Amino acid sequence: MKAPLLLTTAIIAKKRDGQELTRDEIAFIVDGITHASIPDYQIASWAMAVLCRGMTTAETAALTDCMLDSGDRLRPATDRPRVDKHSTGGLGDKVSLILAPLLASIGLDVPMLSGRGLGITGGTLDKLESYEGFRADLSEDEIDQQLRSIGCVITGTTKQIAPADRKLYALRDATATVPSVGLITGSIMSKKLAATLNALVLDVKFGSGAFMQSIDQARELLSSLVATGKRMGVRTTALLSDMNQPLGEMVGNACEVNEAVEVLRGGGPNDVRELTLQLCAQLVASISDATNHNGDQHDVQSAYQRLADELDSGRPLERYREMITAQGGRFLDHLSLHPEHVVTASTAGWVAAVDGQAIGNTVISLKGGRARMGDPIDSKSGLKIIAKVGQEVAAGQPLAHVYAADGSERAVQSVRDAIQLSDSPVAPLTLMPPVEPN
Amino acid sequence: MKAPLLLTTAIIAKKRDGQELTRDEIAFIVDGITHASIPDYQIASWAMAVLCRGMTTAETAALTDCMLDSGDRLRPATDRPRVDKHSTGGLGDKVSLILAPLLASIGLDVPMLSGRGLGITGGTLDKLESYEGFRADLSEDEIDQQLRSIGCVITGTTKQIAPADRKLYALRDATATVPSVGLITGSIMSKKLAATLNALVLDVKFGSGAFMQSIDQARELLSSLVATGKRMGVRTTALLSDMNQPLGEMVGNACEVNEAVEVLRGGGPNDVRELTLQLCAQLVASISDATNHNGDQHDVQSAYQRLADELDSGRPLERYREMITAQGGRFLDHLSLHPEHVVTASTAGWVAAVDGQAIGNTVISLKGGRARMGDPIDSKSGLKIIAKVGQEVAAGQPLAHVYAADGSERAVQSVRDAIQLSDSPVAPLTLMPPVEPN
Repeated sequence: MKAPLLLTTAIIAKKRDGQELTRDEIAFIVDGITHASIPDYQIASWAMAVLCRGMTTAETAALTDCMLDSGDRLRPATDRPRVDKHSTGGLGDKVSLILAPLLASIGLDVPMLSGRGLGITGGTLDKLESYEGFRADLSEDEIDQQLRSIGCVITGTTKQIAPADRKLYALRDATATVPSVGLITGSIMSKKLAATLNALVLDVKFGSGAFMQSIDQARELLSSLVATGKRMGVRTTALLSDMNQPLGEMVGNACEVNEAVEVLRGGGPNDVRELTLQLCAQLVASISDATNHNGDQHDVQSAYQRLADELDSGRPLERYREMITAQGGRFLDHLSLHPEHVVTASTAGWVAAVDGQAIGNTVISLKGGRARMGDPIDSKSGLKIIAKVGQEVAAGQPLAHVYAADGSERAVQSVRDAIQLSDSPVAPLTLMPPVEPN
Repeated sequence: MKAPLLLTTAIIAKKRDGQELTRDEIAFIVDGITHASIPDYQIASWAMAVLCRGMTTAETAALTDCMLDSGDRLRPATDRPRVDKHSTGGLGDKVSLILAPLLASIGLDVPMLSGRGLGITGGTLDKLESYEGFRADLSEDEIDQQLRSIGCVITGTTKQIAPADRKLYALRDATATVPSVGLITGSIMSKKLAATLNALVLDVKFGSGAFMQSIDQARELLSSLVATGKRMGVRTTALLSDMNQPLGEMVGNACEVNEAVEVLRGGGPNDVRELTLQLCAQLVASISDATNHNGDQHDVQSAYQRLADELDSGRPLERYREMITAQGGRFLDHLSLHPEHVVTASTAGWVAAVDGQAIGNTVISLKGGRARMGDPIDSKSGLKIIAKVGQEVAAGQPLAHVYAADGSERAVQSVRDAIQLSDSPVAPLTLMPPVEPN
């Protein structure tokens, strides 16, 4: 269908003037994106109007629904509940690698459709491809098969899933219309809900290493995501997490995989373990309580304890190894990294801040991340950031390690500059501040 | 030059976030429009951000300047002061036809670059083309020549004048980004100032027959236009005029020309004469007083009297006839119209409102205006709206005449519906309310 220009202009004008669009009007726009029947300049103008004027919960739900309807949905493969987690992206976030096999290990299906890294945010698929032979392009049949046998899969979205989102995202990137809560919500939820979930938990990150710099922006996005998920019949819960320093110590690809495996062994950095268990506990509580989608605090605590015990049993690690192997990867207990270079403190003091942008850009400079879509990844590059905000350090004490084949000197200097020291004590950060402001 | 996408996106993001753009950033965008080095979708997104976030006076001046610089400027042809008027467009506005020869008649040069009608707003060039043979496509040399010999010219802008505006306007039309005070100002002023003026007067219209429906919107636009003109070194003054009913009685092409000629003879409807004299008086006062660009009230009054005497002398009509003839037109004292059909009042009462949109659409239906660019015009069609708001009428009394070759019955009905009668007295409208709100 060729969209009449006049109708499109009227819809843009309505949003421009701050009015709520109807479901039909949103469907018309999404259809125009999917079938390229509306020119890019009209979509761009509409997207900017949406960014400036906002979207209501009803509009956001309609957008999500229409983008979801623009493509395929995965059918449930078993009778087990289907659950998933989405993170808005942050430095050192390897939670998916632990969460998927942990939840499968207690009897849930985790059909996780994931993405690649761009900019300072790493991608789960890039991390998993540190295993030689790992495949992230499973077909729908292969996804079904693996869920039946193992209960978890981490693979890329197919071209058939939410094609409208794929096109709209590329246009938003070129037109400065990415940071719209409504458009982000539609983009995330249309892709996640295509997996036909019973429950979804969201890890909404804020801070220098995250997409949302302020906690207020993160809270606004969190509300929109949860409201949209619930409205679409999926039990949706969310946590806020602080990304003013990396999660765990490792930032890169193979090094993050190694850290995830440590956590699956019952060890590893406490913040990674804690955030993973809390996210899993939200999911388990939300599906165990049929009357209260949020789960009450008692449910969350008992789920947490059960999940912690499960993690310590070693069974989730076994499940993880099965998943890697089923997807063609050659599992190793420890992946090798580039040579290590130490970053030491130039003075004594307290760690005041870890600049996420600078850390992320250093990883990109070592080819551990992508500056542009399609750039190759060097999985053996990375950083280990030992210093945590609030920690007291002596002059000459190691703050971080750089894993680099070459260019290590500049990287060491960049990491030293990114870790700010104060000459007076600094309070540590709260990993998971309350979702509601005080 | 191929504009880097990243820079364009950063400029869009800056405006999206409500920040003021620098002159260089605006120049970069305008250059990208002129040379098609920035894709339409980025220009569209930028235009919507400008509409939503607004532009400062400095940004608007920079936009105007850059659009002006995207093309040619006319050089002064004589030593006489160069002046012009711009109206934001309204029903029955034939002021230009009287103003240009009147000002030439007192020794000023009027290089008027005018446009065609679109939608309910008529175009001065379309009206003048009611004269057989009239040419509205003079070259710059022809414009100079005519200014030297007659002192006034009314012709179309050339393709060399403000090409950025031509491209941007087409895109704004398709992306619902027309009603932005900053973009309207840049569009109007870049075209007008290309004529290298000493003084400019603006007739900013509001009401049902105008582009700006409310007086507040019109005042905002007026301030922006005047500030931009002054900042660019042109003595700029402005009047507000009420377009909640047509100006004069005639709405169409040949019929409006006939009415303008009546005013040039010293007769015609008083509102047309009055508005024309006030606009001319503003211009004359603004150039006669070197220290006060607004002219003081005394200067305006004495200029008004001088202009009224000049109009009554018959010399401006002679000047008008010379202009029409010089541009190839066959001047006639009275152009013939299509057969006349009377619209009578169905009940007695007071005229409460004349719906400008409905009147304009009726003229379009008679081919006296254009629904789309390039539609042909039937110059002999039109309306004569006798009824004025506040006037008491008896049942059966003529309210209007329709000049139509066919389709007159529907037109008569539409005009009757457009003229609302009240059963209680209604106050007449104030043609020129104060520029500043009380």
